Amino acid sequence: MATSLLSQLRQAHPLVVNYANFVTPGFVANGLNALGASPIMTSAADEATDLMAVADALVINLGTINESDKELVLTLADAAAANNRPIVLDPVAVGATAYRMRWARQLLADYAISVIRGNASEIAALSGAAANAKGIDAGETAEDPAIIAAHCATQYDCTVVLSGATDIVATPGRVVKVTGGSELLPAVVGSGDLLSSFIAAFSAVAPDLQTAAIAACSVMDAAAEFAAEDLNQRQPGTFAAVLMDALTALTPERVATIIDTVEEFHD
Amino acid sequence: MATSLLSQLRQAHPLVVNYANFVTPGFVANGLNALGASPIMTSAADEATDLMAVADALVINLGTINESDKELVLTLADAAAANNRPIVLDPVAVGATAYRMRWARQLLADYAISVIRGNASEIAALSGAAANAKGIDAGETAEDPAIIAAHCATQYDCTVVLSGATDIVATPGRVVKVTGGSELLPAVVGSGDLLSSFIAAFSAVAPDLQTAAIAACSVMDAAAEFAAEDLNQRQPGTFAAVLMDALTALTPERVATIIDTVEEFHD
Amino acid sequence: MATSLLSQLRQAHPLVVNYANFVTPGFVANGLNALGASPIMTSAADEATDLMAVADALVINLGTINESDKELVLTLADAAAANNRPIVLDPVAVGATAYRMRWARQLLADYAISVIRGNASEIAALSGAAANAKGIDAGETAEDPAIIAAHCATQYDCTVVLSGATDIVATPGRVVKVTGGSELLPAVVGSGDLLSSFIAAFSAVAPDLQTAAIAACSVMDAAAEFAAEDLNQRQPGTFAAVLMDALTALTPERVATIIDTVEEFHD
Repeated sequence: MATSLLSQLRQAHPLVVNYANFVTPGFVANGLNALGASPIMTSAADEATDLMAVADALVINLGTINESDKELVLTLADAAAANNRPIVLDPVAVGATAYRMRWARQLLADYAISVIRGNASEIAALSGAAANAKGIDAGETAEDPAIIAAHCATQYDCTVVLSGATDIVATPGRVVKVTGGSELLPAVVGSGDLLSSFIAAFSAVAPDLQTAAIAACSVMDAAAEFAAEDLNQRQPGTFAAVLMDALTALTPERVATIIDTVEEFHD
Repeated sequence: MATSLLSQLRQAHPLVVNYANFVTPGFVANGLNALGASPIMTSAADEATDLMAVADALVINLGTINESDKELVLTLADAAAANNRPIVLDPVAVGATAYRMRWARQLLADYAISVIRGNASEIAALSGAAANAKGIDAGETAEDPAIIAAHCATQYDCTVVLSGATDIVATPGRVVKVTGGSELLPAVVGSGDLLSSFIAAFSAVAPDLQTAAIAACSVMDAAAEFAAEDLNQRQPGTFAAVLMDALTALTPERVATIIDTVEEFHD
Repeated sequence: MATSLLSQLRQAHPLVVNYANFVTPGFVANGLNALGASPIMTSAADEATDLMAVADALVINLGTINESDKELVLTLADAAAANNRPIVLDPVAVGATAYRMRWARQLLADYAISVIRGNASEIAALSGAAANAKGIDAGETAEDPAIIAAHCATQYDCTVVLSGATDIVATPGRVVKVTGGSELLPAVVGSGDLLSSFIAAFSAVAPDLQTAAIAACSVMDAAAEFAAEDLNQRQPGTFAAVLMDALTALTPERVATIIDTVEEFHD
């Protein structure tokens, strides 16, 4: 499924509006471009409605959110809702500050968020589980990540992607694990942000959000394996550049060859 | 001409003040550095006048403009005018939102903009021609790009650079086409932003703005060909890094060898 | 000393809060990551106190500071003081505008700044010496950099790092010179910003701030030499990527081999 979706995405060239953090916007824009999607970033509430009217999906990234952007974020979310466009929420370091947690909970309460994409400690924090995290790193969680993701999906009634060595894609009652990728992926700042934007891009061509999320994880992992082929684990800088090449050169067949998905059921 | 201007630019080391978008400022700053110019970015209206007093040129990039930056942008433009410094306008995705179009038209009405640099759909949108574009991509235009650029130059009485596979540099009554470059150039987010800043840098050493624009296009295309020499068309990430090397290593002789310019006249 | 501190840093994984400029945040975050530290950026005063409560150090970078961020910067600095965390000040282009100079002097007057890290013209400007600089470049100074740094350290009663071909680490009465690195380092925009963040990271594990600063300069210079090994002086783009690899692969032994430090005394 992920394989034909990649071809469809490259044909459809979906437009993804990113409320991006200011740390990784270039990396995310180049990554979406390399995948075959069309990125746009904005910092003006005045154009939010115009942009969402022609966009396929919205990503809200909490990485450097602040009060000045409140009108922008809410206008984007309102316009996404009005146009029936999916919203992907990336709760960067949501467990680190009460302010980010308030933003995340408010957005989840007021909008039909389609997908939440975070690392283990972010998803754990959102669903109230115990976790140790600092900064933007994943940290460690006591519980089985599949259970945390499944719980979070039920709690917020949406698709949850808990990304890591194994990516977990949960919807209420169903969990799919995507295995693959490279240890170099988490060593690049912005790889999580980019995965969130990939989910948004795939939502424009997938039959449902869980399928979009699985396709995004599969393609990211396959590109990461491809990019890491001639590298050792201590080359994150080279990897970040070569990942763009791999995303551009990736064939649907290659995705099918190297990615395993396993389905599980959770009550 | 472009060849001797490159040597002059490296000697003069012109200071370019960039009102940059937040997606590509690092790429633009590194590119200006690699070319031999001196970049500075700012987000404070309080220092706009001080900066323009010592600067050689100003670039206004509409990529992520917003109302909070209004005083900053207008103060920069006022100071550029007061110091007789050229202003290069980069109307990123100007056709995508009414807000960006208002900004572009207001700046063109209130200031003597020296150069507009955009892709086919942006220049078409500015001059009211029909175009299909979404996001930051060039899209397709129905008309001959040379005619669109010539029309836009006459309409706003300035130099217009419509960049693409062939770059078109138009001033009222005159059109020059610069051929060269690499298909990898538009695959890198920020390559257009960087070209706009190169035009600003060359304006410090060129006898007139059209000559500055031709030099900037020639140098960018020559560096892109140089950088792409050992790459295939699916390596945009590697290309983005190697482009900086090529800009640094580029000799005036090499620019002369690989770039063709053709002059045309349009009423 | 720098060698064992590198091992300690990788174990402690210190969290560095960066009030970053918007030009180089991705480069700084990736560099801190590659070193073994944990980066976080913020643009919300609302979370400043929460972040500093768990952070090891704060960096204040003046590269794109503005009035909207005043509350954010002061809240971060207050929280750093309340938690006894070191503050590293990076006075980017402080000599270029009166606005940046006011910010720098105000912060130095109101807070116990631990370390100032700048290039020759920035440190000269801060201590009132004559200097020629434009943009973000080092420019030229008339005086011996060691004397300028020593004077600045005494004037503001803190550690001063004047980085360049030879890095000078001054505290009142004592100057240490660190020799090494690569000519490619200053060709990369953000290498100074990154060094400031490295000093902050090392302050979490070093016995004192001068030792932290010497370790940061030594590690940066060693990584730069390592990264430049197979490159010529015209490859800044490749170097920027490979520097991340070198920081990741750098062993304490290697730092010890290639870096020389010389101590001097100044009244």
